[in-house]
Parts: sequence; structure tokens; C-alpha cells
Amino acid sequence: MSLYEHICGPSCNHGPSTPEAMADVKEEFQVARRSFLRDAMVVGGATVTASALTMPMGRNAFAQSAQTGSGLATHYYIPAAANTVLWGYFSKSAKPVVEVNSGDFVTIETLTHHANDDAERMVKGDPGAESVFFWDKTRRGVDRRGAGPMDAKVGAGGGEGVHVCTGPVRIKGAEPGDILEVRIIDVVPRPSGNPAHKGKSFGSNAAAWWGFHYGDTLTEPKQREVITIYEVDTTGRRNWARALYNYRWTPQTDPFGVVHPTIDYPGVPVDHRTIKKNEGVLKNIRIPVRPHFGTMGVAPAEAEMVNSIPPNHTGGNIDNWRIGKGATLYYPVAVPGAMFSVGDPHASQGDSELCGTAIECSLTGTFQLILHKKASLPGTPLAELNYPLLETADDWVLHGFSYANYLAELGPNAKNDIFAKSSIDKAMRDAYRKMRHFLMTTQGLSEDEAISLMSIAVDFGITQVVDGNWGVHAVVKKSIFPARGG
Amino acid sequence: MSLYEHICGPSCNHGPSTPEAMADVKEEFQVARRSFLRDAMVVGGATVTASALTMPMGRNAFAQSAQTGSGLATHYYIPAAANTVLWGYFSKSAKPVVEVNSGDFVTIETLTHHANDDAERMVKGDPGAESVFFWDKTRRGVDRRGAGPMDAKVGAGGGEGVHVCTGPVRIKGAEPGDILEVRIIDVVPRPSGNPAHKGKSFGSNAAAWWGFHYGDTLTEPKQREVITIYEVDTTGRRNWARALYNYRWTPQTDPFGVVHPTIDYPGVPVDHRTIKKNEGVLKNIRIPVRPHFGTMGVAPAEAEMVNSIPPNHTGGNIDNWRIGKGATLYYPVAVPGAMFSVGDPHASQGDSELCGTAIECSLTGTFQLILHKKASLPGTPLAELNYPLLETADDWVLHGFSYANYLAELGPNAKNDIFAKSSIDKAMRDAYRKMRHFLMTTQGLSEDEAISLMSIAVDFGITQVVDGNWGVHAVVKKSIFPARGG
Repeated sequence: MSLYEHICGPSCNHGPSTPEAMADVKEEFQVARRSFLRDAMVVGGATVTASALTMPMGRNAFAQSAQTGSGLATHYYIPAAANTVLWGYFSKSAKPVVEVNSGDFVTIETLTHHANDDAERMVKGDPGAESVFFWDKTRRGVDRRGAGPMDAKVGAGGGEGVHVCTGPVRIKGAEPGDILEVRIIDVVPRPSGNPAHKGKSFGSNAAAWWGFHYGDTLTEPKQREVITIYEVDTTGRRNWARALYNYRWTPQTDPFGVVHPTIDYPGVPVDHRTIKKNEGVLKNIRIPVRPHFGTMGVAPAEAEMVNSIPPNHTGGNIDNWRIGKGATLYYPVAVPGAMFSVGDPHASQGDSELCGTAIECSLTGTFQLILHKKASLPGTPLAELNYPLLETADDWVLHGFSYANYLAELGPNAKNDIFAKSSIDKAMRDAYRKMRHFLMTTQGLSEDEAISLMSIAVDFGITQVVDGNWGVHAVVKKSIFPARGG
Repeated sequence: MSLYEHICGPSCNHGPSTPEAMADVKEEFQVARRSFLRDAMVVGGATVTASALTMPMGRNAFAQSAQTGSGLATHYYIPAAANTVLWGYFSKSAKPVVEVNSGDFVTIETLTHHANDDAERMVKGDPGAESVFFWDKTRRGVDRRGAGPMDAKVGAGGGEGVHVCTGPVRIKGAEPGDILEVRIIDVVPRPSGNPAHKGKSFGSNAAAWWGFHYGDTLTEPKQREVITIYEVDTTGRRNWARALYNYRWTPQTDPFGVVHPTIDYPGVPVDHRTIKKNEGVLKNIRIPVRPHFGTMGVAPAEAEMVNSIPPNHTGGNIDNWRIGKGATLYYPVAVPGAMFSVGDPHASQGDSELCGTAIECSLTGTFQLILHKKASLPGTPLAELNYPLLETADDWVLHGFSYANYLAELGPNAKNDIFAKSSIDKAMRDAYRKMRHFLMTTQGLSEDEAISLMSIAVDFGITQVVDGNWGVHAVVKKSIFPARGG
């Protein structure tokens, strides 16, 4: 089922129901997608708004505290383009791409920051990607790449943060202390814009210097970086990806003349004349696809611009493959408007993201954003929530990190120190404390009950060991609580 | 389906097929189960042997290197009793309970070492348990509890190792360098022997001083130990357990007069007149049951008696809930005869075993033991296997530890040092190296292919953080390799 069919198909209750209206919406979305102008996107939103029908609030565990507003929801569409993304950072003060009401739907295109590992497949012929990755002798489509200094040797922003994040989306009325609920309604791969690769999507896996394996290999050179390009079926007929080829990173000279001996930051164009491709790698191996967003969250309060790499209490680069279609996230709002953004799309990832990346593959997601006001929280399961909480069809998933809020905990040099101080042991400690809090708060258990239950029925896994602030997730089945409602 | 029906039911091809023969076997098993005499157990085995039919070797991934012997397999039954268990240690030189051929089946009763937390439910009326846990002013049914000194202050063996392990089973012809394959054919809970609790099984969860949570609690006293007693349905009609009550550990005086202010080692009888029971804990909560064996493996070569707590390259106390019915384990044989034993039965456990224990619940398992001789291994996927490998219906699961072989790596004081030196970070490092080896060896991948695949399709989880040598498991789906056979 295509994205458009999903959003506004005949079986939907929140869009146009006639073929003519459907064609109109499709055209608007096509226009928005091709455009680089923020205005065009907002017009796209406005057009759907004009035809908006009542969208009933879906039912979920925490519906009682949701702010439903007027009961009418609007559907916005945000194409990925140079002026609709922030590259490598969250920012509380960035100009919002769009402002929405609680309950509104937003379809958001996201681009993988690794697209330039094979620009022929992942950039060429795709106007949105071309605008973001544009780079000639004089100009970059998005100049700032990271939260670092603009005069950094490796390029503006210094690569202190790497993810192309679409947004921010401002949520009207959101204030610190509120909770933002984000429902992932749909996720689809972004088709290649290159006619030579019609009907296919592609992704890159970089076994990079920030990977857990780096320097600990059997074969020489131990400090090598290897890119593997994967193909993903866009039609949805195949639920697996396959590898196409791999190559070792060789020093790349960017259009400004700076040489990158290693992957200083993803997005440096790789000149395929300088690399040696190994075809037929991982032959006959089928990688199950688990499309999800590696980086999604709200803006932190602690700094104007925050490196997108370390996840934190406001979410961000959690890198949990369970954050896909059908999942719901709950984030504590830290700044006015919440300032939601999303990027780092993945076709598939394993728990730990061992080599530093997933199958990094552009995706488009449809989200419903629901605000839970602070005053409505006491007595509900969202009271005191101070970490990103994930709900799937079957499970609650809590995210622990080496530092629950590293910006607040590590002091003035937090943005650097976090990359040296992480451990899974610390993240396990944090996950334990969060799960205890969750069970005591949402299920009314005593501490002794919570501790026993955690040991016999909660599974702790390693989310990632490559994002500075390492992660451990704790999974508890909803079916454990059959008689407690909620 | 009951254990007996499973083993020798009308649909089985390896047992008696007439009702009369079936009744005979049942009677033999009942006799064996009631007996404390090793002889009776061996008779039980011999009886089944007499009626043994050809049992075809089942098919599995590594069948090509299996030693099938005569093609006739024997089925043994080992009741749990004072003279069929080792309490708290593996030993290469212990007298075997039985010697079997490759391909033979063994049904083995296992007792939880926590049964004395509620002896009324888990010991009373059960002759096997009563023989093991017997303890009066002059004598203990099993005196040595652990690999420590016999004159230890807390009791003989010093509690240096805690699991009641049934065995060892000697496998004829097994030598160091071989691989022992252990198929778990069936696992059933052990019914309470107390008529007042007919048709039910029980388990204990101890949130103990060796738990990850200990000292890190919200409420005082932070260094408390709490026992929770769970009820498990023995008929198999319910797939969940429920809590009955909990109590705080209070100093317990054992029959020899030694006071145990904390849980020096499980198995000290708890005088229920000295504790305060909290009824109705975890009300309405249903714990999914995942019956499995926490401790199972072959004897290490490094010492005569090895503490059963830290898992090692020969298996042992891996504490992975996936080691249940339908699973197959592959262990590197370290000593002549392999010397297989099994204990630490669990009704359910979460990944991490956070508070120190699972639902510790006596179980009976049926196993098939298959020897793969060293000479047959080259060129097969079991070549170079130097760690415990788990195969389930869908997955391969590899076990990493803080120290892959702590006895060899940590030197003369290894048996103590291991309890101070563990970390999940180290176990993750070991799991990474083992999964890389597995993918390169069994799937013929290059190192670069293996590293990429691990990052996008292998899930790393936290097995346990409470067994001295902490564990991280790596899970890879078999379906990833559709065209590779095996």
C-alpha cells in the first residue's frame, strides 16, 4: 500500500473520499515534494486543512490526558529539502517548519545523511535530496552540519552531530512539563529518484571509526572503514533487503578542497572513481527490514544547538529499531512548542548498532502529534515521565542511557565528555531505575514487587553502543497486566 | 501433554506402543522417581533399554558430524535425590550417575536450590527433594554445598556455588576437543509433593544481596533481601505464573546452629514463624512462563571442583530463558566423558535476571545427548566452537561473557576475582567476537561482511548481571540464510 493510499484512501476517515478529491491531494503532495520552498509545504498543509474532516482521536493507553483541541485535525506534509531540515542538531530556537495543533497529522520526509555514499542511487534525480546534499566549490545546500563552530576545519558545524532531521514542528501550546505523544501511523521507503533505479530504495551501512568493532578486527588494516550499499524493495512486496556491494573508505576530497582521510562526518560526497567496489557481498543473505527512525524527539532546553548524536531524556538518537510503524513515543517537553523533529531513517538495525550505523535509508513517515498538558498528568500513567517511553502493540519499552540527561549531569563540557564516559553498565543502571519508576507509577506496584517483576518478566537489551550516550532498553509485555486496564 | 505421554505416547517412534508397555514404563518411572537409590535409577534406564526400539537421529543443522553409534538409543531416567546431585559445583572427577552413548535420551529431574524458601510447598512430601534438603542437628542430606572448604564457617562447601545440579552424565567416548550436542526434548514443572497443593508447582524469587538492585533502592532499608513465592500451573493449562506472597529475609538459624543474617547461600531452611508474609502481592499480574534450565553444561578442565555460579566456555550457569523446550545446545567438551549436568531450573526469567534470581522452580527435562567427535568437525559449522552455542527453532544465540574462559584468563585467584571484575561492556566485546567467528565460520562470510551484518541484523541482549561472569547474548535469525542450507 502506498503512502498516499494510506493517508487518504477510500477506507480512511480523515481525508477526501471521492476520486477527484484524492487526485487533488496527490497532486498537492507531489507539488510539495518537488518544491524546495517552505511556503509550498505550508500551502500543502493548508490545502489538506481546507478539506479536513473530523478525525476521531484514536484510543490508546494514555488517552485520558490528551488535549484534543477542536476535534478537527489537520494533515500537513513536510517535504525534505534544504530549508526544511536541520543537519546534525536539535534546536529550541530554530524557526519551525510548521506549527500544528494537538491531534494533527504530519507526513514528514526524512533523508539519510549517508546518501552521498552512493549519490547515484540515493541523491540523483531526487530534488529534495539534491537540494540538501548540494555542494560545489562555493556553496553547500545546507552549510551547517553539526552544532560546532562555523569555521571548523572539516566544514561548517564541525560534524558535531550528523543526522539530517526534518523539522522542527512546533506544537501549539506545548510547554515544559507537558508530554508529547507521537504516534507513528505509517513508514515507507523513499524511492530512488534516478530512473535507472525505478521502484527501488537504497541504504548505506558504514562500519566507521565510531563503531564498537573499530580497531578490534582479525584482518589488517584494523582501522579500516567499510561502506556496504543495500537495496530495499520500495513496493513492499519483499520484507527483506540485500547487499549490493561494499568498498573501503579512501581519503575523499570534498568540493571545498578539504581532504577527509576518514569519515569526518557522513555526507561527504564519495567519488566512486577513487574506490574499489566488491560486488556480490553477503550473497543470498536476506536482511529482514524493520523500517524505523533512529533519531526522533523534541528539543532540549540546555543549549541553543545540541549535537544530534547522543540520545537524551528528550529522545533524539535513540536508535531502537522498535520505533517504527505502529509505535507510539512519549517525550517530556523541555521547551515552548516542543519543537519536534525526525531523521536518521533506517531500513534495518540490530540491537547495539555494532559497527556504527544501520541500513541508513531515506524514509517517509506519517505521525500524529498529541499534547498532554502538565496539569492533566497527575494521577495518570504519564505523571513524572522524564524519559522517552515507547509503546508498541505488545510491549512497553523504556530507554536507559549511560547518563539520563547528560547535558545536565556532565557539566559545562558535557558535549565532549559524553563521548568518553559511556558504558553499558551505566545504561543498565539507568534502565533499571526507569523501569522501577514505570512499574511503581503506572501499575501501582511497591518497590519490592517492581524489583521481583523486573527479574522474572522484563528483558533488558543493548540498544546501541555507538552514540556517545550508550543505551539499554527494558521491555515489558502489556499482557502481564490483564486486569489493570490501561 | 504430560511428560510420560510425550516420551512414549502412541505417536512416538522410540518407545512402547501398546497400552501395556506404556503402563510398564510409567510404573518404572514412578518407581525411579520415588527412589533415592542410584541403582533404582539405573534399573529404570535398563528397563527402557530392554524395550528400546530404533530411534532415528533427528535432523538438525549440524547432523553431519554426529556420532550415531549403533543406531539404537536408550532412554534413561535420573531422579533427583541426595546421591544423584552435586550441590554448587561442576566436577570432572565426580562419579557419573550414569554413562550413556551418543544419541541416548535421558530424562532428568532437577530441583531448585531455593526450595527451602517455602519447604511446605517445595520440599514436603517429595521424597527426592526431602532427601536433598534433609538437615537436622547432626547431618545434611547433601553436606557439600559449593566448591569451598568443608570447614567453612557458613557450612561445608562455603556456598561457593549454589545450584543443585543433577548428574554428572558421562558420555561414552567423549574427549576434549569434541562437541556435545544437547537437545531439550521436553520440560515440565515438578508437582508439589504436598497433598495440600496437589496439581500445583511453586517457585521462589529471591531479590538477594548479589542482585543488581541491591543497595540501590528508593525505600529503606536499602540492603534488604526479599523472597517472593510464585505459583505455577502444573497441568500446562495456564501459560502464566502468579505471585502468592513475599517476605523479607530475617536472620535464620540453621539446624547446625549457624546464624545466616543474609542469604549466605540458598537452601538454608526458612522458619516461617520468624518471617512476616505479605499476601496478595503483584495482584492480578500474570507472569508468562518460560520454563528453562539456568545451569546446564559440561565439566571444566581447570579444577577438580568449579563453583557453579560463573558461566564459562563449557556452559554452566548461562541463565538464558531461551534454553527451554525445543532448544539445542552445543558445548565444547573439556574433559573425558564430557560430564554433563543440569540444574537451576526456572519457570521464568527476564533478560538480565536483575534481582539475582528467576522464578526458581523445580523442573524435569528430557534430553538427547549427541556427541560430535573432534575428527569429524573440520569443514563443519561446529569446527573451532569454543563457547556454548544455542539453537532454537528460529534463531542462533551466542553467549558472550565478561571473560570467555575466566578460569584460564584470570589466573590462580580466578575463582574469587571473577566476582569483582565483570562488566556488560566486556561481555559485549566477547559476544561481538564470538558472533563474528560464527558468521565467518558457519556462513563463510568475510570479516567485513560479518561486521556489517552484525550491525543491521543481530540483536545483542543482556543475559544476566548477577552471576559473577556477566553475560551478553547475540541473536541472529536463521531465516537470514535461506539459500545456504544448514
